[in-house]
Amino acid sequence: MSQVATKPMDATPDRDSRDMANAIRALAMDAVQKANSGHPGMPMGMADVASVLFRDFIKLDPARPDWPDRDRFVLSNGHGSMLLYALHHLVGYSDMTIDQLKNFRQIGSKTAGHPEYGHALGIETTTGPLGQGITTAVGMALAERMMNARYGDDLVDHYTYVFCGDGCLMEGISHEAIDLAGHLKLNKLIVLFDDNGISIDGKTDLATSTDQVKRFEAAGWHAERVDGHDAAAIRAAIERARKSDKPAMIAAKTIIGYGSPKLAGSEKSHGAPLGPDEIAATREKLVWTAEAFAIPDTILQGWREIGKKGSAASAEWDKRHAASQKRAEFDAAIKGELGADFAKVMADYRQKLSDEKPKLATRKSSEATLEVVNAATELTVGGSADLTHSVFTLTKGMGDVQAGHYDGRYIRYGIREHAMSAVMNGLALHGGFIPYGGTFLVFSDYMRGGMRLSALMGLRVVYVLTHDSIGLGEDGPTHQPIEHLTMLRATPNMLVFRPADAIETAEAWEVALTAHRPSVLSLSRQNLPTVRAGDIAENRTAKGGYVLREAEGERQVTIMASGSEIEIALAGADKLAAEGIRAAVVSMPSHELFLEQDAAYRAKVLGTAPRVAVEAAAGMSWDRFIGTEGRFVGMRSFGASGPAPKLYEHFGITPEGVAEAAREILR
Amino acid sequence: MSQVATKPMDATPDRDSRDMANAIRALAMDAVQKANSGHPGMPMGMADVASVLFRDFIKLDPARPDWPDRDRFVLSNGHGSMLLYALHHLVGYSDMTIDQLKNFRQIGSKTAGHPEYGHALGIETTTGPLGQGITTAVGMALAERMMNARYGDDLVDHYTYVFCGDGCLMEGISHEAIDLAGHLKLNKLIVLFDDNGISIDGKTDLATSTDQVKRFEAAGWHAERVDGHDAAAIRAAIERARKSDKPAMIAAKTIIGYGSPKLAGSEKSHGAPLGPDEIAATREKLVWTAEAFAIPDTILQGWREIGKKGSAASAEWDKRHAASQKRAEFDAAIKGELGADFAKVMADYRQKLSDEKPKLATRKSSEATLEVVNAATELTVGGSADLTHSVFTLTKGMGDVQAGHYDGRYIRYGIREHAMSAVMNGLALHGGFIPYGGTFLVFSDYMRGGMRLSALMGLRVVYVLTHDSIGLGEDGPTHQPIEHLTMLRATPNMLVFRPADAIETAEAWEVALTAHRPSVLSLSRQNLPTVRAGDIAENRTAKGGYVLREAEGERQVTIMASGSEIEIALAGADKLAAEGIRAAVVSMPSHELFLEQDAAYRAKVLGTAPRVAVEAAAGMSWDRFIGTEGRFVGMRSFGASGPAPKLYEHFGITPEGVAEAAREILR
Repeated sequence: MSQVATKPMDATPDRDSRDMANAIRALAMDAVQKANSGHPGMPMGMADVASVLFRDFIKLDPARPDWPDRDRFVLSNGHGSMLLYALHHLVGYSDMTIDQLKNFRQIGSKTAGHPEYGHALGIETTTGPLGQGITTAVGMALAERMMNARYGDDLVDHYTYVFCGDGCLMEGISHEAIDLAGHLKLNKLIVLFDDNGISIDGKTDLATSTDQVKRFEAAGWHAERVDGHDAAAIRAAIERARKSDKPAMIAAKTIIGYGSPKLAGSEKSHGAPLGPDEIAATREKLVWTAEAFAIPDTILQGWREIGKKGSAASAEWDKRHAASQKRAEFDAAIKGELGADFAKVMADYRQKLSDEKPKLATRKSSEATLEVVNAATELTVGGSADLTHSVFTLTKGMGDVQAGHYDGRYIRYGIREHAMSAVMNGLALHGGFIPYGGTFLVFSDYMRGGMRLSALMGLRVVYVLTHDSIGLGEDGPTHQPIEHLTMLRATPNMLVFRPADAIETAEAWEVALTAHRPSVLSLSRQNLPTVRAGDIAENRTAKGGYVLREAEGERQVTIMASGSEIEIALAGADKLAAEGIRAAVVSMPSHELFLEQDAAYRAKVLGTAPRVAVEAAAGMSWDRFIGTEGRFVGMRSFGASGPAPKLYEHFGITPEGVAEAAREILR
Repeated sequence: MSQVATKPMDATPDRDSRDMANAIRALAMDAVQKANSGHPGMPMGMADVASVLFRDFIKLDPARPDWPDRDRFVLSNGHGSMLLYALHHLVGYSDMTIDQLKNFRQIGSKTAGHPEYGHALGIETTTGPLGQGITTAVGMALAERMMNARYGDDLVDHYTYVFCGDGCLMEGISHEAIDLAGHLKLNKLIVLFDDNGISIDGKTDLATSTDQVKRFEAAGWHAERVDGHDAAAIRAAIERARKSDKPAMIAAKTIIGYGSPKLAGSEKSHGAPLGPDEIAATREKLVWTAEAFAIPDTILQGWREIGKKGSAASAEWDKRHAASQKRAEFDAAIKGELGADFAKVMADYRQKLSDEKPKLATRKSSEATLEVVNAATELTVGGSADLTHSVFTLTKGMGDVQAGHYDGRYIRYGIREHAMSAVMNGLALHGGFIPYGGTFLVFSDYMRGGMRLSALMGLRVVYVLTHDSIGLGEDGPTHQPIEHLTMLRATPNMLVFRPADAIETAEAWEVALTAHRPSVLSLSRQNLPTVRAGDIAENRTAKGGYVLREAEGERQVTIMASGSEIEIALAGADKLAAEGIRAAVVSMPSHELFLEQDAAYRAKVLGTAPRVAVEAAAGMSWDRFIGTEGRFVGMRSFGASGPAPKLYEHFGITPEGVAEAAREILR
């Protein structure tokens, strides 16, 4: 596809650029060799582009990795992590010592196999699963425009730069990212595509014939091709990209493993050490005489100038910040502070619900809660994957985020669930916002990649997932989640809430908005009565599970349920009571939080009587509570198409089903 | 985007086409109204395109829905299911009676909310989750070319037509589909895009600005725009598409809810009944005087002509089939028959393994098995999402499937896991092939959408998912599956195998290739010893779980494990034996198959002693076996980056960890 030829390496006229790039190449080769594991090809191929970008453009202060107005640099092709670690060492991040590079890919080192957010200073996002980085970067670039709309150029004015490879651009999520960024005209997003024509299996023309420049143009981007080893050409292209009023993609034609006499241009340089002999030959070819892991002082000083420039820029920013009338508000936003009265607002709202006892679908209860939340804080940014009027994520006066209208608070993600998840990650990572986004629970399938990274990074992102069972009715099995609650509950570091009524929904939102991890709100399509009214002083959902109704006298059976099945569990307990069987009902809106309570609390809630669990879903996540002796009333197959009440009957998820399960145990 | 204007409806000169289209519109309005649920807008908008396609082009025989050389028609925007049901009624599929249309979306009817494969005659694939249909159709169109390469034009020569909407084209999977189809030059694939400019939230320009024609062209397609209500223009465009040597996309500019005076052109016609008054007004506007659910005879006869033409064509095909020397081979392929000696080939191979006792990673054992399988049958078609040399899915002499080289047996899916899953569904649905495809287990996240449909449709598709734990080592937590086995085991109708050695791997392949549902093979990166040698007469993996090593004397504890942790379980049992504790080791390569055994068998295998389960993954799927009293040795967090043996130590998944868990229970 690429019509741009690459120049021979000795033709590069810019000696400084070449030396700076070779420092990256040498460190990448050496670290991968020492680890005997890793990916040298990409860092060696993209070293020239990285050197130009960092030396001539990027704005960052290594001494202050959390400076809010720094440029964001995202390595979407995260397997090339040694490029990032080399850059961080060279520009002088304090934790990225040469010893860390020597410990590449070892347990406990800062230099994990793929870049991990929070694991070392300055890593903007976790990458590795392809296509996530570029899409997360769309979220960061959008956050920049939205924060700029709120706080002005003085406080917020930075670029988001992305490196990505063929893999990122083949993944479907890249389409969603590109489409959305083009639509939103995110002109401060610049993607540098490592157009090396090589993927793991060999030449990319084994599997793709797409004209990437034309593809990006079709999505409303500025796009062009450039020789990725010609410093002057790269510089000029980045300058044009920065001036464009569109997001920009520069396809940099590079040679993977550049410099290696035998392996350059081959997939063999992608994912394995070059070997000592080839490394020696490459050093010779690159005219790089320094020992392994050694960087000549003059070259290191060149790199350290970047940090000095950045420190000066951050000091200038401090002056503007000190002079800004919006300073306090900006700082609170960056810290993600909900405000001192937030807890009271939510407590008052719980009281109101307890008084009014609405009968609402929890998706509607969520909307009502969001009306309160979005009035109480400006941190929240809503959105939906084109199901706004089904998932009820839009509240009064939010205003759409659109190109040129970045002061809105509601994002039209389009029919792009995967991008929604990754863009929300980007919004959260950038700082200034708490993103939430809605779709049907079943479509968590489409955004597993992004959701997993929310969890791995511990980001405060809220997934509003409605139509959370066969209760969605006629749309049938393709739209009825079965295994999804299990899948999400099995995901480490993810909070899954399935509230039973309006009060539990408000409680779940409160926990989600104050958590240091992502939350899923699993919400019903169908109306549910208020069951939690009365003693609402404490946020019981925060304990994950609690006794909703104790048995009269010693328990003979404990019925556990969540969400829309609480109503059924209560009716089942009524049936049993009529027969003289003493059943308690435990509401379990969040398994994770319940398991985090102390043993005494858990034992008290669960009791020692046999247990029945009820949920209109797969039962796997309940087995830990009911044990091998208990009973599960729920789904054992895919669903079906029909009106919701008939489906509940059809699958036996009824008060009688619950009662019969209890009788079976007690028989 | 679309520069094509739509003509006023009375300007359509083709009276027959208009009447035929109005029959669809009336049935769609009426059925949705009666169900009080459903999506009338799309059928009404695409009725003209459907009428032209069916009347003038499509080749199908309603009396013979499984005729192998029929054209495939895929409704990718499956919410418009009433379009399909109306078409099936009108052309005369025997099961799609007017009563079925009156029972739209009711339990037990043929007319489920979204089209479900196997639920009514002639439904080629289940659609609803957007983007799946178009990608599955790529698989069908590829299967057509591949079967054509094997059996020639006489037996295989048909088109694959797809209806899709804005939603399908916004989803990331559509990029993967389009990219792959363009690369493979699937010239008999024709996509008719319902370019109505409306999505659920409102106008599509809320969320997208992509030029779809340019986008498809960038991926190597023939693409053009047409007025979707001008029969002659549609006809001409389809003719050009059929002549193109590329896959073709026709963006048909339509009006959603066409004919409805108040709701046409509005998202309000998308997903709700029009209401009796508006239906009456629409009837008037369309000059459609028939009662609800009534189709005038002359118009019905027009539709039935399509079936007659198709029956004649299928009779002609029968003659060619009868004369073909490849008939028997073709019939066996369409039936998916593995051949009479397949079982013996596999039994012999098991014996060989039992004799040789190789120590191999199960990904390598899988490759060795595939060498045997692919030599024994030509039904298998392999592939990988650009990880061929890691997942070992390519065997000797398969040959790449490429444009113009459709006689290959190995598909380069590119870095497109989601497309791989849906294309495999299409290959399986078309008939003639058993597709298998490989990537890392963690990337099942990226293809959940397609995998779930494999399970819902009960398709014989094999997912070869390697690097199935922290055993993948240095690539770190982004690449280490934790919750994935749970997620897949919780999915109804999915077989998940995690074999412990070369013999179990061969057994798993044998079951997978003869199953009427999809299978996942979860395979190790690291080497594993043969543990199952000796008594190999029976395929024990087919029972899901079995006693690998009985305790000497009465069991005190049962240690259950799968895959790479069997070795650890055995070593743990050794430790316990040295202390005088009698432990049995149960290998559990497939939870699903084990749960399908009779209660007596299960009880015998599990025993009555306390249980410990070992798996380097989340433990949720084991809770049903270990109960609340047992212990789980496995992962309780995300993984980490480091060499595999160190990670096992770090997370305590060791013989000592197993032994200590057993001691804890027995204390």
